[in-house]
Amino acid sequence: MKIVPVEDFDLRREVEYGTPEQNAAAKRIVQDVKQEGDAALLRYTEELDRTKLTASGLRVTEEELKAAYTKVEPSFVEAISAAARNIRAFHEREKRNSWMDLQPDGSILGQIIRPLKRVGVYVPGGKAAYPSSVLMNVIPAQVAGVPEIVMVTPPATGGKEGINPYILVAAAEAGVHEIYRVGGAQAIAALAYGTETIAPVDKICGPGNIYVALAKREVYGAVDIDSIAGPSEIVVLADEQADPEFVAADLLSQAEHDEMASAILVTPSRQLADAVAAEVKRQLESLPRRDIAAASVEGYGAIIVVESLKEGISVVNRLAPEHLELMVQDPMAIVGLIENAGAIFLGAYSSEPVGDYFAGPNHIIPTNGTARFSSPVDVDDFIKKSSMIYYSKEALLKNGEAIMELARGEGLEAHARAIEVRLKREIEGRD
Amino acid sequence: MKIVPVEDFDLRREVEYGTPEQNAAAKRIVQDVKQEGDAALLRYTEELDRTKLTASGLRVTEEELKAAYTKVEPSFVEAISAAARNIRAFHEREKRNSWMDLQPDGSILGQIIRPLKRVGVYVPGGKAAYPSSVLMNVIPAQVAGVPEIVMVTPPATGGKEGINPYILVAAAEAGVHEIYRVGGAQAIAALAYGTETIAPVDKICGPGNIYVALAKREVYGAVDIDSIAGPSEIVVLADEQADPEFVAADLLSQAEHDEMASAILVTPSRQLADAVAAEVKRQLESLPRRDIAAASVEGYGAIIVVESLKEGISVVNRLAPEHLELMVQDPMAIVGLIENAGAIFLGAYSSEPVGDYFAGPNHIIPTNGTARFSSPVDVDDFIKKSSMIYYSKEALLKNGEAIMELARGEGLEAHARAIEVRLKREIEGRD
Repeated sequence: MKIVPVEDFDLRREVEYGTPEQNAAAKRIVQDVKQEGDAALLRYTEELDRTKLTASGLRVTEEELKAAYTKVEPSFVEAISAAARNIRAFHEREKRNSWMDLQPDGSILGQIIRPLKRVGVYVPGGKAAYPSSVLMNVIPAQVAGVPEIVMVTPPATGGKEGINPYILVAAAEAGVHEIYRVGGAQAIAALAYGTETIAPVDKICGPGNIYVALAKREVYGAVDIDSIAGPSEIVVLADEQADPEFVAADLLSQAEHDEMASAILVTPSRQLADAVAAEVKRQLESLPRRDIAAASVEGYGAIIVVESLKEGISVVNRLAPEHLELMVQDPMAIVGLIENAGAIFLGAYSSEPVGDYFAGPNHIIPTNGTARFSSPVDVDDFIKKSSMIYYSKEALLKNGEAIMELARGEGLEAHARAIEVRLKREIEGRD
Repeated sequence: MKIVPVEDFDLRREVEYGTPEQNAAAKRIVQDVKQEGDAALLRYTEELDRTKLTASGLRVTEEELKAAYTKVEPSFVEAISAAARNIRAFHEREKRNSWMDLQPDGSILGQIIRPLKRVGVYVPGGKAAYPSSVLMNVIPAQVAGVPEIVMVTPPATGGKEGINPYILVAAAEAGVHEIYRVGGAQAIAALAYGTETIAPVDKICGPGNIYVALAKREVYGAVDIDSIAGPSEIVVLADEQADPEFVAADLLSQAEHDEMASAILVTPSRQLADAVAAEVKRQLESLPRRDIAAASVEGYGAIIVVESLKEGISVVNRLAPEHLELMVQDPMAIVGLIENAGAIFLGAYSSEPVGDYFAGPNHIIPTNGTARFSSPVDVDDFIKKSSMIYYSKEALLKNGEAIMELARGEGLEAHARAIEVRLKREIEGRD
């Protein structure tokens, strides 16, 4: 793992929006499904996913869900169900109530907070078919109160026949029972516009390949979409007392995701830097995903030696990483100075996989420096707000002139008259 | 105003993303400013806004802000300052605190809520140069705690020399003192990437022409942007007791915005429908913006007669309007049944301009049916959240096996080992 100067580092990467050909293909698929419904959906599923289905076979049955349980270890079911409980408990804390403010003049102003009505979760079929991501997308929507959550996933996962049973068990444990075996741009179009079999949704979330991403961009506006995630990142800020074995293991847990993932150590300790570099090399040897992790470490990994923890904090804030571990003597003394980081892990035992799977906070976190202005997925992503304005007659009489002044200042006379017609009526009424 | 069946109505319109030429122009301007900074900014200002400036002349001076006060009526200053107070008071109610959850095993989970650091507000120079929009963008950011708020606006407003003094007074009343006289795609690029004179921001908001909109799309990712608003809309749901003069005035206050604006009455009363149609015709006659309002009413306005209030509610939910007025006997009996509407005005005195200018809720509200899944601008648009995870040694010992189970279920061995290395150390430590 190379030790580099901080100037050489910027997590920002150019976002890939696909080739013109991929764009055109995604656009065509979306248009066809929008216009032809199930017919196009089934045609593309046969053509692209090499699976011949009928409309009535699109939906995963309760029997299949039950059967999936027989294909996974009981310890997995237990673990995912415990994770689901923790994720639910954490997200419950994020819920908000509608509120109102009663004014002395009898007016009432407020904000009505409601769940979205129907949400679609895309679960990819390839190497990124993660049961944990099912929980992380579904549970915040449930906690928000979304009454209808539907999942789509390609008919066969990773070349094997049928849908990955771990995915199905995760869905069932999360409480999702409306699942369709469709993937790709065609599944996104079905969720956005509806077909004879699949009712349209208000929001689509979940990761996917380039066609899925392009289709999501294409349907945005007709429905809401989540943001498109870049490669995963971790920054570990560590001082001389950090355990190099722990630091290296955590860096590698990020690096194994894919060749583009980024694992960075920032430390004022040259000794730790050397020890971690050696540990990374040693631990890499025995990793099943050694090639991927090595490519990530080589291409996007780094150890940045800084002058002081203070400089380290400023480096972290500039990187604005998705995941940040504070492996320092006193993490609480530092956390308040972190301006930009999606998820912050404090101390030696808060290894990133704790948050990836189990602790409760969401693992869908802003990448590519966007933690500067965006946030991990949470309940807020599945609600909508309406302003409520009840203005009393007294309030209008008191404030009507000011409102007309502002409207006329903008040259909007009809706005002023909507107030004036009411004030006049009151004055006439008094005569 | 035409009376039409409900089937003919859908507020959704195709969103305009500009011609390929406009796209290319916006892209080129953004690239040039990104690479050349002030030099390109000044060049495009001269070329497109026909104003020759120097870098040191970009910023509006305190003297100019003071001078603006001498060009507007004192009653305007008073009215806008009262509006600012109300808007601030409403948005204060939306603020949230960071929180944490202390677990019995000593773990601490939480959500850190922080303001964005620097926000840019675009104020257009054309007919949509609204002082009220300055307040509606700036105040939620201030309430969120954003320490730096900067405004950009074209060097000349609507053909006249200099910046509209109403805009400058609104900025000063809101408390914005960093203002630059630049507009168009070049201003957006300066905010996104920074120049020698203008420091880059984390988020850009505010409306603008097609080049501004395309430039915002172009820089999205490097910074956050707000959503791109469509034409304004109002739906009035009214029963037989509603006052046709009030209803017509409110419909026209929306219609005068622009030819594409949409004003719709939904009512079970044929009598009210006829009376409102006649009133609209009468009131239109004397409006200064008669041509615009008439074109809007003609092109996008309608009176929809329904069977019952219940059917009316279902029509409203399908339309998902930006603004909804409930001019019915008992609005409280209906508001709970409204699923989709950006802002809801209750009763005869809650005319839409009350909310446009003065009451306190934001007037930047989802258009084009997107109230189904999005919300008026509020404090949440100017904050970011970080998850915080402190896992105790006890918690890791208790849950480590489950975390490893889940990681291995996903084929991510390095994730499992990041936990295992810690568990092993504990077991060895005990020996």
